[in-house]
Amino acid sequence: MRYIVIMAGGLGSRFWPSSTEQRPKQFLDILGIGKTLLQMTYDRSLAIVPREQIIVITNKVYIDLVAEQLPELPLENILGEPSRNNTGPCIAYAALHLLSRKGASSFAVLASDHVMLKENEFVISINKAFDYAENHNAILTLSIKPSRPDTGYGYIEVADHDLHEVKKVLSFKEKPDLDKAKEYLQAGTFSWNSGIFIWSIDTLLKAFKNYSPNILKTLSRNLEKFGTKEEESYLEEVYPLTENISIDYALLEKADNVYTLTADLGWSDLGTWNSLHDFLEKDENLNVVQSASQYLVDVQNSIIKVDGNKKVVIKGLENFIVIDEKDALLIYPKSDEQEIKGVVSMLSNQEKR
Amino acid sequence: MRYIVIMAGGLGSRFWPSSTEQRPKQFLDILGIGKTLLQMTYDRSLAIVPREQIIVITNKVYIDLVAEQLPELPLENILGEPSRNNTGPCIAYAALHLLSRKGASSFAVLASDHVMLKENEFVISINKAFDYAENHNAILTLSIKPSRPDTGYGYIEVADHDLHEVKKVLSFKEKPDLDKAKEYLQAGTFSWNSGIFIWSIDTLLKAFKNYSPNILKTLSRNLEKFGTKEEESYLEEVYPLTENISIDYALLEKADNVYTLTADLGWSDLGTWNSLHDFLEKDENLNVVQSASQYLVDVQNSIIKVDGNKKVVIKGLENFIVIDEKDALLIYPKSDEQEIKGVVSMLSNQEKR
Repeated sequence: MRYIVIMAGGLGSRFWPSSTEQRPKQFLDILGIGKTLLQMTYDRSLAIVPREQIIVITNKVYIDLVAEQLPELPLENILGEPSRNNTGPCIAYAALHLLSRKGASSFAVLASDHVMLKENEFVISINKAFDYAENHNAILTLSIKPSRPDTGYGYIEVADHDLHEVKKVLSFKEKPDLDKAKEYLQAGTFSWNSGIFIWSIDTLLKAFKNYSPNILKTLSRNLEKFGTKEEESYLEEVYPLTENISIDYALLEKADNVYTLTADLGWSDLGTWNSLHDFLEKDENLNVVQSASQYLVDVQNSIIKVDGNKKVVIKGLENFIVIDEKDALLIYPKSDEQEIKGVVSMLSNQEKR
Repeated sequence: MRYIVIMAGGLGSRFWPSSTEQRPKQFLDILGIGKTLLQMTYDRSLAIVPREQIIVITNKVYIDLVAEQLPELPLENILGEPSRNNTGPCIAYAALHLLSRKGASSFAVLASDHVMLKENEFVISINKAFDYAENHNAILTLSIKPSRPDTGYGYIEVADHDLHEVKKVLSFKEKPDLDKAKEYLQAGTFSWNSGIFIWSIDTLLKAFKNYSPNILKTLSRNLEKFGTKEEESYLEEVYPLTENISIDYALLEKADNVYTLTADLGWSDLGTWNSLHDFLEKDENLNVVQSASQYLVDVQNSIIKVDGNKKVVIKGLENFIVIDEKDALLIYPKSDEQEIKGVVSMLSNQEKR
């Protein structure tokens, strides 16, 4: 039986001040369409499995938010991480939990804060990936056919670019500089690493055993707790002891059975304000504007998002991010947006002091 | 008996979005010191006359606001203008009202939205002006010793610049360009027109009779209504019929008995965001910042004012006005601030349509 595991524990701090620790990006209607990114991901998953086979795994502080935003999701399908230990331990926990569920055989992992325009393509691809993963000893990723030399994504190298076949991964590449990204695009054998994974529980646990045995050992001390009422308190004990490591470092870059299916999904990880600007429709001055009413003069190639029913009057900004939320106002050059995460962390540390 | 008449009916639309039609500038704590500009003006007036001799004249829609902000002011000392007809009719009304008060002989007119740092100097000067006005057939203005070649003020030309003597006004000058303003400053015989007037009721009414007889005629149709319960309904009838004209055009630029006492008051009319920026203390980057917490990088010579308990993060703005209020966000180049009034009027017309 197939499951979909939606990871919804991230902080989304690059999307500050819209995204905050209290209500990160995945819980926001960041596209302004009346649905949060998590709700969109859930709806997308329903086209693949019934709701009983959808698991949302999140930091325990967000469990109520998830339940509120997905009222139809069975409560026992919301799993809470007691600490922020990155995607490695998170996915291991999901695998061990599913192991306790009768009939569970394979699962796909989706981020809760990505968008994709071509949902049909997504359904076809993910089903194809499930078929493959269930019949091979394969760790599978869904990768994205690149449409531009994006420097904000990691890349996956394969032998060739047949969109309809599963290929063995030759190597993972970190976010490249622009020259490198152009090279990748031209080569035609690189695709974007989307962070979407598909595997059988069996294959995944074997990989953990081989490449990150400590995570598995720590979480498996008392395997029979999974799927019981004591799962939560057991997790509180063992989960924080696992190392903080991404699934990429923990498994994918080490394993020799990693495959990818490349697809053209109209996908974005919405990692930054810039990527949102890229993704959304722009006006004649290349601005993306979300506000009740605005008067803009000499404003170009900017993203302007204003909470509530506010008027906005702006003159003379080019390539800026202007985000006005209830608790904070951000006015920042688009080109420097990678600094925002650091600023937020600094401000939040100041507050805690 | 001396009176002080505080004019508090202005819209302050250059100070949008802090100042709105619902709550114009004079009703705001624009300096962030815990008192509104009106309250500061009232306190300043109390050093000259007792509260029974302070009149606030405002548009009738603001009567409740005045009463709320000045709870100790007798209610009958708040006069409402039924329409916005500028300072000419406003001052004529004040004079006719005072005529009905037993013992009233002279009054000073103050704007409710100016600031002055040297309040002692103000008290000394205004008392001196009263002494003069009561003993001469003189229309007196208090003018300000210029400290810089300001192009935002009108100028008053006198024979010489003795700060401690009343001088005859040679001419009134409109707001000059920078070269002209420098010339005025260097000449030493020009002072800023502050819009503060002192006169005896008798002299003032004579001047109206001579130079703007229509205003007086319109308001005096039924002179015995002033000071009675019917004053308000009478005003409703006649006040809107007066012409819309400033006291400067109605009287001062025509009369031949205009005098001025020049003083050094640390005064500003706070006419614009720029003048507020000039007036307030600046940080090492020449910024004036009013916010609960801020993180500014490469922000210079700007005025940043954020409502409430909001965090502000800004990078890369120079010479900007950033005003974030509950209902509106303004980000505008300081050099173009004279456009703000027009933008506000346009937005407000759009709304009314």
